[in-house]
Amino acid sequence: MDNKPLILTIAVLGGTGKEGKGLAYRWAKAGYRVLIGSRSSEKAVIAASEILELLEAAGSVVGMDNLEATTQADIVVLTVPYSAHRATLESVKDALKGKLLIDVTVPLVPPKVSKVQMPLAGSAAQEAREIIGEGVEVVAAFQNISHEHLLEDGDVECDVLVTGTSKDARHEALKLVEAAGLVGWDAGPIENSVVVEGLTSVLININKQYGSTHSGIRITGVSKNS
Amino acid sequence: MDNKPLILTIAVLGGTGKEGKGLAYRWAKAGYRVLIGSRSSEKAVIAASEILELLEAAGSVVGMDNLEATTQADIVVLTVPYSAHRATLESVKDALKGKLLIDVTVPLVPPKVSKVQMPLAGSAAQEAREIIGEGVEVVAAFQNISHEHLLEDGDVECDVLVTGTSKDARHEALKLVEAAGLVGWDAGPIENSVVVEGLTSVLININKQYGSTHSGIRITGVSKNS
Repeated sequence: MDNKPLILTIAVLGGTGKEGKGLAYRWAKAGYRVLIGSRSSEKAVIAASEILELLEAAGSVVGMDNLEATTQADIVVLTVPYSAHRATLESVKDALKGKLLIDVTVPLVPPKVSKVQMPLAGSAAQEAREIIGEGVEVVAAFQNISHEHLLEDGDVECDVLVTGTSKDARHEALKLVEAAGLVGWDAGPIENSVVVEGLTSVLININKQYGSTHSGIRITGVSKNS
Repeated sequence: MDNKPLILTIAVLGGTGKEGKGLAYRWAKAGYRVLIGSRSSEKAVIAASEILELLEAAGSVVGMDNLEATTQADIVVLTVPYSAHRATLESVKDALKGKLLIDVTVPLVPPKVSKVQMPLAGSAAQEAREIIGEGVEVVAAFQNISHEHLLEDGDVECDVLVTGTSKDARHEALKLVEAAGLVGWDAGPIENSVVVEGLTSVLININKQYGSTHSGIRITGVSKNS
């Protein structure tokens, strides 16, 4: 039952935050083994038990520090605020080798969070790649999903654009998008992550201008016949 | 009847191309006075007569060279390929002063058109601003609209994200979006144009991966109660 090739282990670093918790909940519900990572293992343990409660204990969610979670995982999902992006990556860098990193980070620069302001590398995901170096596939995804509805079981009215360093990596990430009950699209190479990360500022702007808290996007004019 | 404050004149530079022609058709149909601009006034005159034919002569569409069109217009819409972007702007620079420029250009770099590759200025629209200097409001819009359906009268299944140098300029452009029968959204400052221009590469990628010719986006989770 705990056969490794069948049940993948996903570490959600920064999994004590709202976005990370919501994704962790959905993946645990879909049958993945989920590790909640945090700088503080105590906080991670509390978050894990909260998620387990929502799942009525029907799922595998364990809390631990970021490094331990990364070490044990097959896929590592980074959901920290941009201010903690570099430090978190540096702290788990060696344990990431050979794994898939899914970066959810949006490089917002307060107070002007509705204005796109990318780091020199081009985007947070490209910066992640620079920090961790070769040997790790990097995918950028989930940046436009409002956390509000992740902990509910209903439809999320926002598609997920997935960019990444290889088609295989994007394909792997698209499986997790689907497992979370979301609609995902292969949006091309990692250089395209500037669009997806920047779209969050555009949506923040639309929320502000038109009075919403959860604007999103849907891809139109194309269907998935795969 | 030809009262200037009531009937605005829109110059569509590069209006002999498919995108420009489609927009010109829709604006002329909505009652605007439309000038088709081209490097060659002969080609512009031919395109104008083609559009007039589609309108069964019920509209005002005149062809002329880019400079003359810019001089006569209140609003100038740039729909040239990126390779002609700088030269076209330089050729009409002086005539643009005090007007609104709507830049539709997508800085695609063949052959890798599905990969986002922005100019140093950050985006084509920001580059336009550098080329023409102060005294012109610049808006970026319509980059994600497939030309395929513009010359038909049906719904276009793609929203228009409008970024620009001021809220007033974006508001002015949003009126033209609506006049063209499209749904537009204020997507924030001109720095956000990287997202909208880059989204075209993402959509090209989605077209290729999932077998479409006209994928687009819709904004969800927000309604316009204005």
